[in-house]
Amino acid sequence: MKVRNLVSKRYKETPADCQIASQALMMRGGYIKPVGNGIFTLFPITSRITNKIEKIMREEMDRIGGQEVQFPVAMPATLWKESGRFDSIGSELLRFKDRSGADMVLGMTHEEAATHFVRDVMDSYTQYPFMIYQIQTKFRDEPRCRGGLIRVREFRMKDGYSFHTSQEDLERYYMECYEAYNRIYARCGVPEVVAVASDSGMMGGKVSHEYMLLTPVGEDTIVLCRDCDYRANMEAAPCIVEAYPGELKELEKIATPGVKTIDELCEFIHIDPKATCKAVVYQENLTDQFVVVFVRGDLDISETKLRNYLKAEIHPGEITEDCALHAGSIGPKGLPEGVKVVYDKSLEGVNWFATGANEDGMHYVGFNIPREMGEVEYVDVAKAVDGGICPVCGKPSVYTSRGIEVGNIFQLGKKYSESMNLTYVDADGSLKNPIMGCYGIGVGRLAAAVCEAHRDDYGPIWPISIAPWHVEICSLRADNEEVAATSQKLYDELTARGVEVLWDDRSVSAGVMFSDADLFGVPLRVVVSPKGLKNGTIEISARDKSMQEKKPIAEAADFIYNCVVEELKKLDCRL
Amino acid sequence: MKVRNLVSKRYKETPADCQIASQALMMRGGYIKPVGNGIFTLFPITSRITNKIEKIMREEMDRIGGQEVQFPVAMPATLWKESGRFDSIGSELLRFKDRSGADMVLGMTHEEAATHFVRDVMDSYTQYPFMIYQIQTKFRDEPRCRGGLIRVREFRMKDGYSFHTSQEDLERYYMECYEAYNRIYARCGVPEVVAVASDSGMMGGKVSHEYMLLTPVGEDTIVLCRDCDYRANMEAAPCIVEAYPGELKELEKIATPGVKTIDELCEFIHIDPKATCKAVVYQENLTDQFVVVFVRGDLDISETKLRNYLKAEIHPGEITEDCALHAGSIGPKGLPEGVKVVYDKSLEGVNWFATGANEDGMHYVGFNIPREMGEVEYVDVAKAVDGGICPVCGKPSVYTSRGIEVGNIFQLGKKYSESMNLTYVDADGSLKNPIMGCYGIGVGRLAAAVCEAHRDDYGPIWPISIAPWHVEICSLRADNEEVAATSQKLYDELTARGVEVLWDDRSVSAGVMFSDADLFGVPLRVVVSPKGLKNGTIEISARDKSMQEKKPIAEAADFIYNCVVEELKKLDCRL
Repeated sequence: MKVRNLVSKRYKETPADCQIASQALMMRGGYIKPVGNGIFTLFPITSRITNKIEKIMREEMDRIGGQEVQFPVAMPATLWKESGRFDSIGSELLRFKDRSGADMVLGMTHEEAATHFVRDVMDSYTQYPFMIYQIQTKFRDEPRCRGGLIRVREFRMKDGYSFHTSQEDLERYYMECYEAYNRIYARCGVPEVVAVASDSGMMGGKVSHEYMLLTPVGEDTIVLCRDCDYRANMEAAPCIVEAYPGELKELEKIATPGVKTIDELCEFIHIDPKATCKAVVYQENLTDQFVVVFVRGDLDISETKLRNYLKAEIHPGEITEDCALHAGSIGPKGLPEGVKVVYDKSLEGVNWFATGANEDGMHYVGFNIPREMGEVEYVDVAKAVDGGICPVCGKPSVYTSRGIEVGNIFQLGKKYSESMNLTYVDADGSLKNPIMGCYGIGVGRLAAAVCEAHRDDYGPIWPISIAPWHVEICSLRADNEEVAATSQKLYDELTARGVEVLWDDRSVSAGVMFSDADLFGVPLRVVVSPKGLKNGTIEISARDKSMQEKKPIAEAADFIYNCVVEELKKLDCRL
Repeated sequence: MKVRNLVSKRYKETPADCQIASQALMMRGGYIKPVGNGIFTLFPITSRITNKIEKIMREEMDRIGGQEVQFPVAMPATLWKESGRFDSIGSELLRFKDRSGADMVLGMTHEEAATHFVRDVMDSYTQYPFMIYQIQTKFRDEPRCRGGLIRVREFRMKDGYSFHTSQEDLERYYMECYEAYNRIYARCGVPEVVAVASDSGMMGGKVSHEYMLLTPVGEDTIVLCRDCDYRANMEAAPCIVEAYPGELKELEKIATPGVKTIDELCEFIHIDPKATCKAVVYQENLTDQFVVVFVRGDLDISETKLRNYLKAEIHPGEITEDCALHAGSIGPKGLPEGVKVVYDKSLEGVNWFATGANEDGMHYVGFNIPREMGEVEYVDVAKAVDGGICPVCGKPSVYTSRGIEVGNIFQLGKKYSESMNLTYVDADGSLKNPIMGCYGIGVGRLAAAVCEAHRDDYGPIWPISIAPWHVEICSLRADNEEVAATSQKLYDELTARGVEVLWDDRSVSAGVMFSDADLFGVPLRVVVSPKGLKNGTIEISARDKSMQEKKPIAEAADFIYNCVVEELKKLDCRL
C-alpha cells in the first residue's frame, strides 16, 4: 500500500476537546472520525489494527474451546424483560419500537441472547460444558463519552459465555479464560495489563475480574500491594486500616460554634482526623429512607460497597428541616428515630472519638461506640487508601493507581439461567439450571489503550502484532531513479514474502514524511535515500528507537524480513 | 472439532412456517435460531461459513484496491436529513431517539456515512479515485421477512463506496467491481449467479446491476434472452412485443351488457386479448391525481416503470362514484377532464382495438388511436413477457425466470456528494463534487442462496471454499479400538496439515450419523468402520456424490489432503 493511495489524513493541530494523549494522536493521525457523540468511523489504518486484534481474540478463544456464534445487535425487548434487565438498567440501554410497535433494545451485552440461544439447544448434561463467543457491535447510550475510543456509545466487542453443570467446572474454566485473556493482552503488546478482582455490578454473580491497563489517565482506581500480588478495583478492595485507638476517657459534650466539617472540628480541638467519626448521609432511592454512615474522619465512602450492603440503590441524602438531622453535628448518639445506621470497619476497636452530638453547634469528645451504643455491626463500606493494610499479605503496603479497563470476566452463576428458564436434563433425569460465566473485551478500546501505553510525543508506537503494517519504506527523493528502483524492489520482495509494507514515495520533504511516519506508528522504518544509496546502504530503524542499522542494499530485505518474523514471534504471532 | 462438542442441534421435523427448502434445511440442521421477526442468532456452524464468505469478500475487495473501514451501525439522523433520505425512505428505515432526545437511525446502507467520512478527508483531486468498504451489521425494518436468511431485518453486509473525478473513471472502476463480484460468487461456489441490469430504485443514479441466483423460489423476476446474453430485471427490461395490427375499420360503439373485464370482452365479441386496449387506473400519492394507463389487453403494468415515468409515488386508483370513471368501460375517448393518460408502447402501430367507451355497458370496436385521439406519446410501462422481443438481438426470444438477489452495484453519480456537499479541489483549483459508485452483498443471504442452489433432500452441499469444515470423519463404532485409533490418527494428521475436520465419534447408529452428516453438508466424508478396516480400507466420498473411493488406510490421509487442496484450488482458495 502506498501512502499516496491510502484513504487517510493527518492534522497538525490537536482538536480542542481531546482529553488524553492517545485520543489526540488518533485524531491527528487520522485513525478515527467522529460521526456523533461517542460514535466513530474507523479509517482503513484503524480497521487494519482492529482486524488483527480480532484475529488474536479468535485464536485465543478457539484455543480454549470457544465456538464463534453471532447474536443480533437489535433484539426483542421480551428477552430483556425475562431477565429483568429491561427494568433494572437505566437509560444506557437503548430502547426503541419497531414498525409494528414492538419493544426492542440494542444489545449492550448479550447474556440474554446467549441464554435464549442455548435454551432448547443444549438440553442434556452430556453437552456441557461449552463456551460460545461472538465479535459484534454493541451500543451503550453512555452519558459521558471520553478519550476517543476509550469510552464510546457504539463499539465492537468480543463477548463470550460459558455454561457449566457445577461451580467447580465454572471455576476451572474461568481460570482458563483468565489465562487466555492474559495471552490476548500479551500478544497485543500490552503484557502490563493486570487482572484485578472487581465488583460485578449489574452483571450479577460474585467472582469477577477486570483487566486494567495502569495509566494516570485511566478512569478507574485500582488498589495494589507493594509487597505481594494483591490487586483489586476500588469497589472490591476492602479498606483495612490500623486502628487509631486513642485513650479511653469520659464522654464529654462540648460547644463547637460554627463547626460543620471534620476539618473544622480537627482544627477547633486540635486532633487528627483519624480521631473523629464522620457522618455521611444517603437516602435509598425507592423509599427515601435515610441512611447515616459513620466512618473514620480521614476516609471516604465507597457507594458501590454501601449499595451492595444495603441491596438498594442510593443517592446523597437531602437534609431538610423536617428530617430532624443536624447537618454538621450528626453523631451516633441521639439520632432521630427511623434512621438506618451503618458503622464502617474503620471505627472498630477505637476508644476515643470526636463526633457530632445531634445538636447544632455541639459535638462529643471521648466517644466510645461500645460504651455509648452497645454492640454494633461494623461493615466495610470505606474506600481503600494509600498506606492501608493488604488483605492478602497483611502489610501496610496498599497503594492506589489509575487504570483503563480493557476487559472483564464474570462468574455469573445462575442469574440468567434461572430467570430465563434455561435448563438441562442431568444424569439422574432431573432438570437443572446451568451455571454461567461471561467474558468481554472491547476491540476499539483495547486499540486505544495500546496507543495510550505505547506512544511518544509524535505518534503511536504500535506493537508489531497489531500494527497496521509491519514495515514502512520512506523513499526520500522518489524522483531519483535509483531510489525509486531500489524501493520498488524492496517493496516487491518483502510483499512477496508476506510482509505488510506501507510505502511512502510522495514528493514531500523528509520532515513531512517522517512526521507522518511517526503518526502511522509502523514498528520498522526503512529509509531509502540518495545519500544512503551512494554509500550502498539502506537505513532500518525501530519506531520505538530500540534499533537503528545501516545495511548493505543486498542484505536489507533479508534483514527486515528476519526482524519482522522475530518480533512477531515474541508476541506469539506469525506472518 | 468433535460433533459431540459442537454447540448444535438437529431436528427431524421441518418447522411449519418454512417457505423455501434452504430455510427448512438450515432450521433442521441447526444453522440459525430465530430471535424475533427476521432476526436470527447464527450457530457456530454458520459463523464458520459466513467468516469464510467474508474472507473471500475482503480478498476480492482488496484485490481491486478497496480499503476496509468501519462505519457506525447507529447514526445521527442529521446525516440522513442532509441526503434527504430521512424523509424519502419509509418505515423500513428504523428511527429512534437517544437518551438526549436526538434523532438517530440504524444504518440500512451507508452512503451517508461514507460521504460524511470522505468529506474534509479526501479533498484533493490527487487523492482520487479510491474505494472504501466495510463488513458491518445493517438493520432494515422489513415488513415481510421470509426464507430464513433470505429476507431478514438484521444482516451483515459487505458494502463498498467508490469515489471518482469523472464518469469515465467511475465506469472503468464499476466494471472492475462487476468482475470482482463475479469472482466472489464463483469462489463461493455459485458461478451460476448472473448480473442483470436493474432499476436503481431509492439508491439514486442510473446504471446499476443486480446479481441474481436463478431459482424458482426467488422473489424477483428476471428477463433473459435465449439467443443472446441479454439479462435485466423486470423493472429495467423494456417490454417489446410484435404489433398485433388488425385491419383498419370504422369505429363502432356496441352494447356490452355485464362486460367488465378484458376476458369477458374477448369472450363476448370473440377476439384475442391482443386486440384489446386495457385501462389500469392509478392515483398519485401526494395529490390523488387520477392516472389512466392504457396497455394492450394481454400485458401488465410495471408500477416501477410507471413511477419512474411519472416521477411520483402511486397507488391503485380508488374509483368512486364522483370521479366520473366508469370501471369496466374505461377507454381513451370521452374520459372525464383532469385525468392524466399514459399510453403504453404496445399500443403503437395498431389499427383495430376493442376498448371501453366510458359509458357503463358500452365498448368501442375498431378503435384506432391516431385517428380517434390524434398524435399521442407512447411510453414503455408494461412488464416484459415470455416471447417478447430482445432489445439487444431483436429476436422474439425473451423469457422470464425467478431469482434471489445476492448483490448489487450502482453508479450513484453525484446524488450524495451534491446533497451532502462533498467536494474536492480539482487541478484547476475549482471545487467539484466527486462521482460515486456503491457495491453491496449481504453475507447471510449469500450463504442461504448457496444452500438453496446446492442441496439435496437431506441437507446442504456446501462448496468447499465456504464449507464449515473440509472433511467429516464418521467413525462407525468408535468404541472399537481400531476404529478409534485409526480415526484419531487420521484426524491428527489432517488437522496438522491445516485441513478443517469435523469428527463424529458419537455412539449413535450409522443412520443417525449419516443423516446428521447430510445436514452438516461437509463436502468430503470419510467413513472409518470395523468392516472397512478389516479389508484395510477407509471409505471416502463426496457429499455431492461425484466421488466414492475405498483407499488403503496408509494412503487415506494423503488422498484426502490432495482432494481438499485440489477442490479448494478450483474455487481459487487455499488451505
